[in-house]
Amino acid sequence: MANASTDNPTAAVLVIGDEILSGRTADTNLNTVARFLTELGVDLLEARVVGDRREQIVDAINTLRSGHDYLFTTGGIGPTHDDITAECVAAAFGVALPFHPEALAILERRYGADFNDARRRMARIPEGGTLIRNPVTDAPGFQVENVFVMAGVPKIMQVMLEDVRPRLRTGAAVVSRTLKVEGVGEGVLSAPLEAVATAYPELSLGSYPFGSGSNDFGAQLVVRGRDADRVRAAIKDLTAALKDAGVERITPLD
Amino acid sequence: MANASTDNPTAAVLVIGDEILSGRTADTNLNTVARFLTELGVDLLEARVVGDRREQIVDAINTLRSGHDYLFTTGGIGPTHDDITAECVAAAFGVALPFHPEALAILERRYGADFNDARRRMARIPEGGTLIRNPVTDAPGFQVENVFVMAGVPKIMQVMLEDVRPRLRTGAAVVSRTLKVEGVGEGVLSAPLEAVATAYPELSLGSYPFGSGSNDFGAQLVVRGRDADRVRAAIKDLTAALKDAGVERITPLD
Repeated sequence: MANASTDNPTAAVLVIGDEILSGRTADTNLNTVARFLTELGVDLLEARVVGDRREQIVDAINTLRSGHDYLFTTGGIGPTHDDITAECVAAAFGVALPFHPEALAILERRYGADFNDARRRMARIPEGGTLIRNPVTDAPGFQVENVFVMAGVPKIMQVMLEDVRPRLRTGAAVVSRTLKVEGVGEGVLSAPLEAVATAYPELSLGSYPFGSGSNDFGAQLVVRGRDADRVRAAIKDLTAALKDAGVERITPLD
Repeated sequence: MANASTDNPTAAVLVIGDEILSGRTADTNLNTVARFLTELGVDLLEARVVGDRREQIVDAINTLRSGHDYLFTTGGIGPTHDDITAECVAAAFGVALPFHPEALAILERRYGADFNDARRRMARIPEGGTLIRNPVTDAPGFQVENVFVMAGVPKIMQVMLEDVRPRLRTGAAVVSRTLKVEGVGEGVLSAPLEAVATAYPELSLGSYPFGSGSNDFGAQLVVRGRDADRVRAAIKDLTAALKDAGVERITPLD
């Protein structure tokens, strides 16, 4: 896919957890955050996955927060000994990690007499941080400057995004249109695609093959951009170019 | 999860493709490679996802290949204009990108009269590279030194791993045992977990909560390590510590 430079805010995602790198858990948060950001016109430019290792987490936070307008982290903010994201964020910003009065109050209300030391850990928020609400299990995420620190459990991460949404500067949302072509391989599609990509340098064109056998195979051709008229014109030109190349089964999907 | 240093080979994964960062496609290859490497005793220490941008890809390849014993890339080796992984690998190693005779022969055999310029692109292999077989659609991946370059289509990536397997130095495989605990939150589990983690510094202990309501919730507690006897002993101690903490529903899963 070509890459159009824009004035949109940029972002990175940092997924934290040994369980992702061991393969025990398949991450789904990256895709959730990616779709969320695309919808808001925030350009997600990179993602990293690191284990529960302090130095690696701190380095990644500092690299990604300085290279992008926003950094979103997932994982490592629970009550157990392997949950070290909060202390890593504090270290990355060079600030203390005190108990946050509002976080303490939220957790105290939830746990009552069962509010033990482990749970108290979840109320430690880097100095200057503001809370991200968690209506599912109450234990909050937090924001420090341009870094949003969220839970790893997908259902919790998803609701946290809703609390983050109004805090973000948004960009021009992307318009996307897709042609499904069947019975033809990418090798035939390449020349028409490249011709249209060259004629519309501000748009992104992608080709996503499906199938591999002799029957049900083809590709989805996706044109993306901020200007709906240009996307529509490119789809029209691409359809014509595909027909010229002998492609017969072309279906607009949207 | 604590982290035991070992003599195992280390690895990184680089997922390449705008479609992952836009959220259009949910990556599954990272999990597949992670499980594959864990089984072989190769420690996957980090993963990155980048878009179809040359400079970003080249930088990531050079950082990750020099920091780890192995680098596995997925995506960007098809025939279309946005498939730029091969040229990026060549640039990263500072070598040319000639047509590879065997790759040409393989693709010529598959496509016959339909072997056009776009498909010919897939036979360009960085100098010094060896092919990775693709029994699904024939177009090969390739290996340059410690970098394994594979397709993005999961079914193809998976069979390529089988051709890569005998080329890897393997380490001590990890033994893993899991306790399922129900009706109790991580806040109660934290102290017993930390006690056992401290007593067995060479093992990794992780806690993975499930559920969030008042009925069906709990956590899977995983003990991992290279020495099966130590893992077994830690599981026994952890079970005892959990019972002491008042946890009643404990089920060994393996």
